[in-house]
Amino acid sequence: MRLGVIGATGYAGQELLRLLAWRPGDEVVLATSRREAGQPLTSVLPALAGVANYDDLILEEPVNLAGKADVFLLAAQHGAAMGIASELIKGGAKLVDLSADFRLRDPALFEKWYQPHEAPDLLARAVYGLPELYRSQIAKADLVANPGCYPTSIILAMAPLLAAGLVDFSQVLVADSKSGVTGAGREANLSNSFCEVSDNFRAYKVVGHRHTPEIVQELSALAGREVKLAFTPHLAPINRGILSTAYLRLLKDMSAENVWKIYREYYEKAPFVRLLGLSRAPETANVRGTNLCELGLFLDRDSSLLKVVSVIDNLCRGAAGQAVANLNIMTGKPEDYALKMSPLRP
Amino acid sequence: MRLGVIGATGYAGQELLRLLAWRPGDEVVLATSRREAGQPLTSVLPALAGVANYDDLILEEPVNLAGKADVFLLAAQHGAAMGIASELIKGGAKLVDLSADFRLRDPALFEKWYQPHEAPDLLARAVYGLPELYRSQIAKADLVANPGCYPTSIILAMAPLLAAGLVDFSQVLVADSKSGVTGAGREANLSNSFCEVSDNFRAYKVVGHRHTPEIVQELSALAGREVKLAFTPHLAPINRGILSTAYLRLLKDMSAENVWKIYREYYEKAPFVRLLGLSRAPETANVRGTNLCELGLFLDRDSSLLKVVSVIDNLCRGAAGQAVANLNIMTGKPEDYALKMSPLRP
Amino acid sequence: MRLGVIGATGYAGQELLRLLAWRPGDEVVLATSRREAGQPLTSVLPALAGVANYDDLILEEPVNLAGKADVFLLAAQHGAAMGIASELIKGGAKLVDLSADFRLRDPALFEKWYQPHEAPDLLARAVYGLPELYRSQIAKADLVANPGCYPTSIILAMAPLLAAGLVDFSQVLVADSKSGVTGAGREANLSNSFCEVSDNFRAYKVVGHRHTPEIVQELSALAGREVKLAFTPHLAPINRGILSTAYLRLLKDMSAENVWKIYREYYEKAPFVRLLGLSRAPETANVRGTNLCELGLFLDRDSSLLKVVSVIDNLCRGAAGQAVANLNIMTGKPEDYALKMSPLRP
Amino acid sequence: MRLGVIGATGYAGQELLRLLAWRPGDEVVLATSRREAGQPLTSVLPALAGVANYDDLILEEPVNLAGKADVFLLAAQHGAAMGIASELIKGGAKLVDLSADFRLRDPALFEKWYQPHEAPDLLARAVYGLPELYRSQIAKADLVANPGCYPTSIILAMAPLLAAGLVDFSQVLVADSKSGVTGAGREANLSNSFCEVSDNFRAYKVVGHRHTPEIVQELSALAGREVKLAFTPHLAPINRGILSTAYLRLLKDMSAENVWKIYREYYEKAPFVRLLGLSRAPETANVRGTNLCELGLFLDRDSSLLKVVSVIDNLCRGAAGQAVANLNIMTGKPEDYALKMSPLRP
Repeated sequence: MRLGVIGATGYAGQELLRLLAWRPGDEVVLATSRREAGQPLTSVLPALAGVANYDDLILEEPVNLAGKADVFLLAAQHGAAMGIASELIKGGAKLVDLSADFRLRDPALFEKWYQPHEAPDLLARAVYGLPELYRSQIAKADLVANPGCYPTSIILAMAPLLAAGLVDFSQVLVADSKSGVTGAGREANLSNSFCEVSDNFRAYKVVGHRHTPEIVQELSALAGREVKLAFTPHLAPINRGILSTAYLRLLKDMSAENVWKIYREYYEKAPFVRLLGLSRAPETANVRGTNLCELGLFLDRDSSLLKVVSVIDNLCRGAAGQAVANLNIMTGKPEDYALKMSPLRP
Repeated sequence: MRLGVIGATGYAGQELLRLLAWRPGDEVVLATSRREAGQPLTSVLPALAGVANYDDLILEEPVNLAGKADVFLLAAQHGAAMGIASELIKGGAKLVDLSADFRLRDPALFEKWYQPHEAPDLLARAVYGLPELYRSQIAKADLVANPGCYPTSIILAMAPLLAAGLVDFSQVLVADSKSGVTGAGREANLSNSFCEVSDNFRAYKVVGHRHTPEIVQELSALAGREVKLAFTPHLAPINRGILSTAYLRLLKDMSAENVWKIYREYYEKAPFVRLLGLSRAPETANVRGTNLCELGLFLDRDSSLLKVVSVIDNLCRGAAGQAVANLNIMTGKPEDYALKMSPLRP
Repeated sequence: MRLGVIGATGYAGQELLRLLAWRPGDEVVLATSRREAGQPLTSVLPALAGVANYDDLILEEPVNLAGKADVFLLAAQHGAAMGIASELIKGGAKLVDLSADFRLRDPALFEKWYQPHEAPDLLARAVYGLPELYRSQIAKADLVANPGCYPTSIILAMAPLLAAGLVDFSQVLVADSKSGVTGAGREANLSNSFCEVSDNFRAYKVVGHRHTPEIVQELSALAGREVKLAFTPHLAPINRGILSTAYLRLLKDMSAENVWKIYREYYEKAPFVRLLGLSRAPETANVRGTNLCELGLFLDRDSSLLKVVSVIDNLCRGAAGQAVANLNIMTGKPEDYALKMSPLRP
Repeated sequence: MRLGVIGATGYAGQELLRLLAWRPGDEVVLATSRREAGQPLTSVLPALAGVANYDDLILEEPVNLAGKADVFLLAAQHGAAMGIASELIKGGAKLVDLSADFRLRDPALFEKWYQPHEAPDLLARAVYGLPELYRSQIAKADLVANPGCYPTSIILAMAPLLAAGLVDFSQVLVADSKSGVTGAGREANLSNSFCEVSDNFRAYKVVGHRHTPEIVQELSALAGREVKLAFTPHLAPINRGILSTAYLRLLKDMSAENVWKIYREYYEKAPFVRLLGLSRAPETANVRGTNLCELGLFLDRDSSLLKVVSVIDNLCRGAAGQAVANLNIMTGKPEDYALKMSPLRP
């Protein structure tokens, strides 16, 4: 299978290349970069020198791509995929888009949070690529909208309880998220320079982060009603990882064990969800470099709230790893094909 | 004034020594350490070599302390202060206790969360040392219970709104806190070793952290009713700093500007509260090494919640700095005497 | 092949488990830990839950090991391997020892730097497990002494030039090394706690680090004479990685290109040496999680010295990865079998 | 005294403002920034809100400066100071220049490493602002060239031995330096972004770093002959701090104690040199936020070399702190006036 990576030199692109390196029978035949086109891939990303066939790749402009690959993994900036998706699909290719372009079902909502949508007709065709929720649809799709990193961590934390109809919505849902800095991309940016981030912790976009409508869309679909959510992103001085702490009120009195069982059943066939035993707390380092989502459940009798803590590697499960899982599902491979890495810890 | 630092080699003790070094007229005449008694202070803490009179101090056992200082700053483990406070006060000294021993007014509550209280009669005498709330009582006290680090950050974030009676308690209060590692003390401890913490982020004691009753006590006093609170501590890979994100529902529709004015007025005379303009977010690095609490306010129309983000330096404002402010107030000095450090940033 | 990991819960043991997880046909059947015997492996190392067969392993005491595995990988403290090696070899097993026990050929030297040797007869049998220097001997060995992390980085930096007889020994060799904290092991230790290491950089054991005789032994063997070396280790606030900067005087005037060619030829068949082009500088992140050694060469005309900069991942190439490469060579597999990971960057 | 800070929003400028905040009788009346002129100082640097008179300062363009201050501290990019120094001096002001413009005595050398010099006539007038070497000249100067950060750490490590004529120059001097990231300035720069630096360690400008001629100039002056030096800078993932490891051969056999005494005497009157006892190793955290230089001496019998390890805070002693010390000396104050901060540790 010929694979094309669009936006290969960003952190998500770089992570795709890491994960796609050792798939017998598959080969990355195309790597593009607007900024660094013309340069050998491994002179821009020297850590990949000697890996797979990467020394042979020259970064290309992201133009005239149709026919150049069987599956395209699009890791470019928001707004790029919607301009080329139609052409690539017509050329017979399958697409996994890591940007936000096809995540929101409502083009008006997309326009409100991003910009006017250039391919609204494709929105119905696109499948939201969270395998735990949409595995069978992904298997049949030719256009998969890979979820955002925050949404992945928050939806997986809340889904089983929402799907079971056990949430008391008189308490506004709270999702307090902490992200590593790779989430901001491979950019020269003073506010993400080492000296501004190291030994520092901050909240940012406290109101109005663009992932909000995506999270609300999926939580509402699970709940069967429009949910209210207070979502706050924070920046932690780590490279990779998101930890989200979710606060929900249960509709009725339940034991912690029963809540745990609901989660256990919901994720029974999910190879990438690691449900911790009661009272064990997740850590981002436990999933570093992997496609896992680790979940911890805590019933707080004093406040009468349930706390769910989830961690993912934002670059892997929150971007490239999930894209590869979707690629696997779309092409008839096991979901975890070539994705069974052990976490790099420490 | 002769100052005595009990528990001088822990991180809070070390920070006290940093802050007490340059006070004309005051001198640290006594520094104790159970573990390192007998050693010269600056051979245990070489960073303080050459500072003030510290090269002349030998670490002493924390016994027979009465009369050795005019004011004692107790930075020992929980449980140590309640055994010696009575004797020291009888000896005519003033005390600022940085442990939890005198923070809870109810001895039964203390026993539930810690151990049986050895000096319950002193609990009524002790003043909770949060100057913004209890400045006038502190001025008259001879025993001040210095607040915990998490409580300081959370109470300051919520106090103005609770005091104004503007909180809708049908929404359980949420306080999601992220702390630097110095909060865990200067201890050999695998789970706080560099390799277990660096490039990692985790929740811990998700339910039942010992600071919970202290926070609830003070929030309830402000609200005039028992409040419910979901408090979750997390460990961030930073040395100093706590950032707390508080979520509250307003009792009535208000503009962000009006909420801001309530905070502005409440903290009008507080030299150590830095209230940011609307939509500016606090960062722990902005208060590193200082006694400041920086607050940011965010009205989230979508979720209908108010978010308050607060940051402090947990070692300074959350421990030693606040103790020195209390020392100042207790001895008739300006609250910010010898505490006007600029933040060390970066 | 049945594999046994002795000292499975230290960082080197943990890394061995990461690397051994996905070898078709091989299985870790034994994992020991003195401190944590009796516990399920994945309750001590939760990051490995769900990986390979690790959920089924119970940590055992490191006793009566003979016959329990075909190859033993010994990642215990110094002094443990020499007591059990003889018995295991007699039982027909092959051994890769990651400790220092079999690295020094001279038992008197071992006694000087460590303790009296308990199995001096095995020293002649042991092969120093640096594949670039001893590949053919390793292939025939049943006891391989896996090199230390500092020695690996320094010997690989200097070997080609020493072997070519091009070093002017009137200039004492200098090797200035900077290591990540995993090198100190998984231990509760105040001096390696997060707050003592983070945002800090220090030298340690500036004179007399135990890796010195091992480095001198191998450099001298390459040079055909006793060499003098000034070696200084430093602690950098990173989890993984060693960067060593070597300073040598060339015996005669040479172009940088010619020096480069000597290195290129020397490492022609080494799958794990990545020689950078002239004037490119190595970074530890380029080899994170891999068995690579990345080398950069710099001819400094002003000082008339050659500088060679080398980086490895101390846990992988400096310990577990090199052990697995030796395992591969000893058992007839390609040196890089199951070791072709792409670096985890960032 | 009216103080002017030119280049106030870079890291050195920011540090100057931190240090100049609390000097009774002195006031910063002028702060300039080419990039951010027109903005209130504390909206660019919010950490300084509420500090001294800084909320009242508007950042100015760096033009028409003569007469606006009594002393100017120039923390702009290299090349800026030489264009305005003459005018400011004629206006009666004293100058401390933190850039490289006046550090090299030979204009041809400056041109070789930087650019043609615009004010070569001032070079003879400028005094190299390392107080331990040039205190009495600084006291009389109106133009002081504040040393570079690497030079400060390296010259202080080697000076006593060179001045004593005890170095054997048949061994090329080696200075292996490790710097924090603030040394690169407050710039948006991909290679200094958090994700490229964190958990990473690298060498850079291994040959030809611009500080080399400055170091060689001063070491040669001390030695009374042209010295050869191999200097290698590295980037460590810390905010502040430089640790330099110097390697020298002694001209004759000496005890470690005697070497120590030479250093002790040389620095007898230096308030900012902290000479550690034998076999104690410096750490950058011991001097964080201070103007100290901490030195450790190690006689390595095996290699026959002396190792000297020095640490400074690159932003403070390596830039702003040293500038303030020079300001003190130039204006008749004690060298350590308003500079006696205790280190911020941890």
